[in-house]
Amino acid sequence: MMRIDNLQYANWSEKIFRQMREGGVDAVHVTIAYHENFRETVLNFERWNRWFEEYPDLIMKGQWADDVNIARETGRTAIFFGFQNPSPIEDDIGLVEIVHTLGARFMQLTYNNQSLLATGCYEAEDTGITRMGRQVIKEMNRVGLVIDMSHSADRSTIEAADISERPIAITHANPYEWSPALRNKKDDVIRAVTENGGMLGFSVYPHHLRDKSDCTLQSFCEMIARTVEKFGARHFGIGTDLCQDQPDSVVEWMRVGRWSKEIDYGEGSASAPGFPPMPSWFNDNRDFDSIEAGLRATGLSDAEVAGIMGDNWHRFYAKGFTPGS
Amino acid sequence: MMRIDNLQYANWSEKIFRQMREGGVDAVHVTIAYHENFRETVLNFERWNRWFEEYPDLIMKGQWADDVNIARETGRTAIFFGFQNPSPIEDDIGLVEIVHTLGARFMQLTYNNQSLLATGCYEAEDTGITRMGRQVIKEMNRVGLVIDMSHSADRSTIEAADISERPIAITHANPYEWSPALRNKKDDVIRAVTENGGMLGFSVYPHHLRDKSDCTLQSFCEMIARTVEKFGARHFGIGTDLCQDQPDSVVEWMRVGRWSKEIDYGEGSASAPGFPPMPSWFNDNRDFDSIEAGLRATGLSDAEVAGIMGDNWHRFYAKGFTPGS
Repeated sequence: MMRIDNLQYANWSEKIFRQMREGGVDAVHVTIAYHENFRETVLNFERWNRWFEEYPDLIMKGQWADDVNIARETGRTAIFFGFQNPSPIEDDIGLVEIVHTLGARFMQLTYNNQSLLATGCYEAEDTGITRMGRQVIKEMNRVGLVIDMSHSADRSTIEAADISERPIAITHANPYEWSPALRNKKDDVIRAVTENGGMLGFSVYPHHLRDKSDCTLQSFCEMIARTVEKFGARHFGIGTDLCQDQPDSVVEWMRVGRWSKEIDYGEGSASAPGFPPMPSWFNDNRDFDSIEAGLRATGLSDAEVAGIMGDNWHRFYAKGFTPGS
Repeated sequence: MMRIDNLQYANWSEKIFRQMREGGVDAVHVTIAYHENFRETVLNFERWNRWFEEYPDLIMKGQWADDVNIARETGRTAIFFGFQNPSPIEDDIGLVEIVHTLGARFMQLTYNNQSLLATGCYEAEDTGITRMGRQVIKEMNRVGLVIDMSHSADRSTIEAADISERPIAITHANPYEWSPALRNKKDDVIRAVTENGGMLGFSVYPHHLRDKSDCTLQSFCEMIARTVEKFGARHFGIGTDLCQDQPDSVVEWMRVGRWSKEIDYGEGSASAPGFPPMPSWFNDNRDFDSIEAGLRATGLSDAEVAGIMGDNWHRFYAKGFTPGS
């Protein structure tokens, strides 16, 4: 059974790469930009090049779906790159192909705020995809850079799913119905994404969970089973949003970037400004067995569980990453 | 009588600087960025530094209202800098103070498209000032960088006028009622700007004129007289939008920047993609006498004409460019 986590943003180290191997994780989509501009993002590609050079027995650069098979056969984890903001392409549509050539495979059209392309979920209103956004979606479709709407507002997400000629993704979020966080997704949003062949990765980031850090594994897995029943098992996977070993200064960068002189607490608050504690049943890459067991306990079939644990993302990679016609 | 043109974007040369002197122009606000990022904008400051070094008898750098007096007393034209897009501050609120220190005095919150701060007049819908936009307006107010909404959509402009604690400007546009171009301003927009102490500069760019290149001087001046009557003479000046000697490749850069692989004709069209021909009565900086005579012919008082030709912008500079409290 293939195992793919389609969103992590850890403070990377040999320890974490070894935990990926212990947890049998064949591929991880890692975030390499929150607010970085193009040049800063290139520095992050460079950092990963050094890690690939330093830990060739543990990790390898992932570019195509088949790299997951190669990683699996050679006992490594394939690392795929993505951005949580279009900041790496700045105002330049020509950078879409450049970042794909460098290895980027997912790009959010917005983080929490309005971008040049679409509206983020923290803005008061949402006008959908902008003039530049329509051009960039077409170019992302052409080169094989997947549109990720995890942090985008509802209308923008539905429009992106409709405008895009290739399936789009919500790499890390949960249904709003289960846990009404601003970042979670209402049924009409999930429907628009999945009906167009897209996928959603279930998140274990506590702010996206019912009862936050106190969420039980059973509640999480039953939510998955109900969602799968409603929208079809093939459209779902895991995107833990694991932010392991990150200092709280990093969550401040994620939330405030360079756009405000005032602190914005995002999903946190003045009394709890940092990263929230993880639920007891998921702390690092060694804990995927417990999610898999929890999914089986809900009565999902072996094929459904295999799909959610990795096969669905693998199939999506095969369709999404190659240049279009 | 002071003479200020509050918007030009010419292909600068000694010839044009000499024409400024022949036309008795004491100050010009020049655009130094359409889509340039911070580093590219610094190159444009550098170009102007070289021109100031090369033509010290003709031009000088303008930073404060009093520099217009100094220019006048020494027979030169003071050059003030502005941006038609917030691209020079990228996604970084800290750059607001940096560009002001370098000499920027006006910044549009958008060009034609959605920006990180507000909505441009060519977008289908307008959600007004964004989360980052509110922060940046506050910072612009603090350092003395004037908010210019010439290319912004209506709601964004009205909100900017209301949110800003200092008067804002529409540096170059005309009333929509006189010439219903997308870029011209409806009465409620002009009212919001002027009621808050702001100013509008009348444009002679043919796409903003009734009958475009065939507009008569009389029609232009009567429009000014009627607008002044409606909103108060103190709130208006000239902002010609003179794009003298520019090749058509420049209007393509203005319209398309780097945001689209397809041509966008903006105010032009496929059959007329370039700069439109200027009206017969205004071709360069030597033609301000004709505007002044045309204004007198409408029956405006000497003080009103003097205000429109330069005194109003001069007073606005004195209030707008210094750091706030």
